[in-house]
Amino acid sequence: MLEKAITYARANRQSHLYQLQDWLRIPSISTLPEHKDDVRKAAQFAADQLSEMGFHRVDVDDTPGHPIVYAENIGLDTPTLLIYGHFDVQPVDPFDEWTRHPFEPKVEGDNLYARGASDDKGQAFAVLAALESYLKTSGKLPVNVKVLLEGEEEVISPNLFPYLRDNAEKLSADAILIADQDMLDPKIPVVMWGVRGNLYTEIEVSGPAHDLHSGTFGGGVDNPLNVLVRLLSSLQDGGTRKVLIPGFYDEVHELNDEERALIARAPINDDLGMYLTGAPALDGEAGYSLAERVSVRPTLEIHGIAGGFTGEGSKTVIPSKATAKVSMRLVPNQNPDEITELLETHLRALCPATVNLDVRVIGKATPVKINYKSPAVQAAAIAYERGFGAPPVYLRGGGSLPIVHTMIEELSQPGKGEIPVVMIGFGLPDDRTHAPNEKFHLPNFYNGIETVIHYLDLFASL
Amino acid sequence: MLEKAITYARANRQSHLYQLQDWLRIPSISTLPEHKDDVRKAAQFAADQLSEMGFHRVDVDDTPGHPIVYAENIGLDTPTLLIYGHFDVQPVDPFDEWTRHPFEPKVEGDNLYARGASDDKGQAFAVLAALESYLKTSGKLPVNVKVLLEGEEEVISPNLFPYLRDNAEKLSADAILIADQDMLDPKIPVVMWGVRGNLYTEIEVSGPAHDLHSGTFGGGVDNPLNVLVRLLSSLQDGGTRKVLIPGFYDEVHELNDEERALIARAPINDDLGMYLTGAPALDGEAGYSLAERVSVRPTLEIHGIAGGFTGEGSKTVIPSKATAKVSMRLVPNQNPDEITELLETHLRALCPATVNLDVRVIGKATPVKINYKSPAVQAAAIAYERGFGAPPVYLRGGGSLPIVHTMIEELSQPGKGEIPVVMIGFGLPDDRTHAPNEKFHLPNFYNGIETVIHYLDLFASL
Repeated sequence: MLEKAITYARANRQSHLYQLQDWLRIPSISTLPEHKDDVRKAAQFAADQLSEMGFHRVDVDDTPGHPIVYAENIGLDTPTLLIYGHFDVQPVDPFDEWTRHPFEPKVEGDNLYARGASDDKGQAFAVLAALESYLKTSGKLPVNVKVLLEGEEEVISPNLFPYLRDNAEKLSADAILIADQDMLDPKIPVVMWGVRGNLYTEIEVSGPAHDLHSGTFGGGVDNPLNVLVRLLSSLQDGGTRKVLIPGFYDEVHELNDEERALIARAPINDDLGMYLTGAPALDGEAGYSLAERVSVRPTLEIHGIAGGFTGEGSKTVIPSKATAKVSMRLVPNQNPDEITELLETHLRALCPATVNLDVRVIGKATPVKINYKSPAVQAAAIAYERGFGAPPVYLRGGGSLPIVHTMIEELSQPGKGEIPVVMIGFGLPDDRTHAPNEKFHLPNFYNGIETVIHYLDLFASL
Repeated sequence: MLEKAITYARANRQSHLYQLQDWLRIPSISTLPEHKDDVRKAAQFAADQLSEMGFHRVDVDDTPGHPIVYAENIGLDTPTLLIYGHFDVQPVDPFDEWTRHPFEPKVEGDNLYARGASDDKGQAFAVLAALESYLKTSGKLPVNVKVLLEGEEEVISPNLFPYLRDNAEKLSADAILIADQDMLDPKIPVVMWGVRGNLYTEIEVSGPAHDLHSGTFGGGVDNPLNVLVRLLSSLQDGGTRKVLIPGFYDEVHELNDEERALIARAPINDDLGMYLTGAPALDGEAGYSLAERVSVRPTLEIHGIAGGFTGEGSKTVIPSKATAKVSMRLVPNQNPDEITELLETHLRALCPATVNLDVRVIGKATPVKINYKSPAVQAAAIAYERGFGAPPVYLRGGGSLPIVHTMIEELSQPGKGEIPVVMIGFGLPDDRTHAPNEKFHLPNFYNGIETVIHYLDLFASL
């Protein structure tokens, strides 16, 4: 089965590329209401592909937002793999910076340019092509497969969460495969064994009933911006960059030696960091390497501060209120709700009576750590090596993917422990996902298809 | 002479009001290029008034910006008084909040509503009406008078400064009278014996070459907003509200007992401060009363912080740079240039190598203290008592009026000490200057005319 599938995949690269280009022509921008029909078209396109290749059951399920595609080929006496992907894409602004039309996919050299080429249609299609390679050659898959494709990943999956809860039995599986991430370069695949969580807050300090002139009232009242800045500055030590909220690190586990060594193997160093960021110098939490600081350590970032006057020139205003957007990347086992309480307690203790304080949570995601030793994850490492000719590095993701934690919570079965989530991907750091001129590296597309073919084969004997 | 002038002023209140309304109909908004002709019309209106009442010399002097009106009636064997005022006005936005048209002056009850009614056409016209009251009844003034009216006060007088320097001899005088400020209420006139200075800066911290995703890079680089907040928070103690820039208070003189008592006599208390600001509680520099904190003590205010994201919702951006607008009200004898150096030295010592720091000065004004015992100032107190039937309180101004320091610097004569600047005014705290629905309290207008008539009489015998 395996060999025939590989042969088929290699013989059909051109036709897989054409089909992917057809999918990319559909401007399925989930955040823009005027593209609602396009998102549905992209869903139907995937459903048609799945039907055509021979899936027994293919549904396009309506939600209050964009539809979810569910397909299954089950009934074998094998483990079951749930595959997740998404067919919606980011908006294209700033449109003027695209040198090719975002929805007229174009191959140049080794790259395919289009919105969604890498995130995530290109990667999701590699999975579909792998499934097709089995079905078209053997008439069946080596394992039970369930496919779950959503159209709201770029708008934080509002309807996927209830869908998971309501369909936990239908979606039950022995492992989840997600192909929606980057490799470090075309010869360094990445197995992601966790993601950071996130707590995104707005911290608002309000004082005078209206803006005041700083000549007339300066010195008489506390300026909400002055107070806010003092509160914010109390959150992080300027030397060690430790977060100073009491209790913040209580649930943070240090890596063990093996985990540290695993991360140290990734070719992430300060030279690369300087190159990617253009910062005058790098620094961060004392005692941790760059690779650790951006992946397994929690952070605190101020994203913006509103209030007062920031236009050209000078305005001597004491603003009536000032608001900061502050987020914290969290790591296992920090709980966003507990951290919210710690944050608010800390700020309230420092806040003077001259102002009112409001702390609002506007987004949160629970951090996830995945057991990279689980057979389902180890199989991915072998599949990568067969598909790309190179072993992967093991990293934890610095960003947050709320669906991972939700999937684990909703789909883990009693007595079977946490369901393994296998996070792989075929993108590259310079794919410009979410930015103009997004591209997908075609050798990664073809090697990705073969990686998934191998993964299905390996998964069958777990 | 005095009695005839007073009688004339009382008999001509209605006609003075009509003339002021004509002046107010001219929308002389100095900051808007489309009102350039209107500012000139307002200048010509004042010049015509001065000619008509019998000034010997009346010039409308061109500048690279708006014109300056200069008039003189000299040649008497008396001291010379230089009178300053301005005929330009602030913009009217937000226009929708005006309940009457800003340039169709309307009397309602005791108030005259129009842009410029209080700041400063109404107050300047009180001076013109006082001069007219002498000239129309006695054919002369009791003292030598020079009148200097500008059309750029609301845009920080860019052309007045060189004009003063170039015309120091023509403008030479024994004292300067400025009527452009508020009383505390219609029965509490104010003699202003100084103004705070100001140093307005932009403090910019730049790090990464471009905005970064806080998931991917958070913890790896210093966030310019985090660093800026730490730097800003180092500028002021959260408990004492003392400015923490080393050397900041070195040149600040404490008030002597007499000066403290003088300020303590003003009916400024925390209840009034709470009423005017609507703040939950008042607080400020430890050890000083509210009246002192807003007038004779230096301050530090953050006016706004730009950089990153402040829109609706969340964006997990590490901004490439962040910029704060920070001003300090200065008091005698703080020097804005020296304070700039202290500020920059302090910030550079704290700023980490992970970012670049830029400190820019975008505005400055030197603080001024006026000898309130000088006969020219004491005469104003008596004139107020005669014009308003109430003695004034003595306050120092919390705002900054750069022209005061410049006038003292350019027009003080060798061997004669600092020229006394007599700062009086007939506005009220609720006149809404610079805001919609500006008004002028008409009893103050009429009492103001008589106050200036008395002042000219008193000045003659100094």
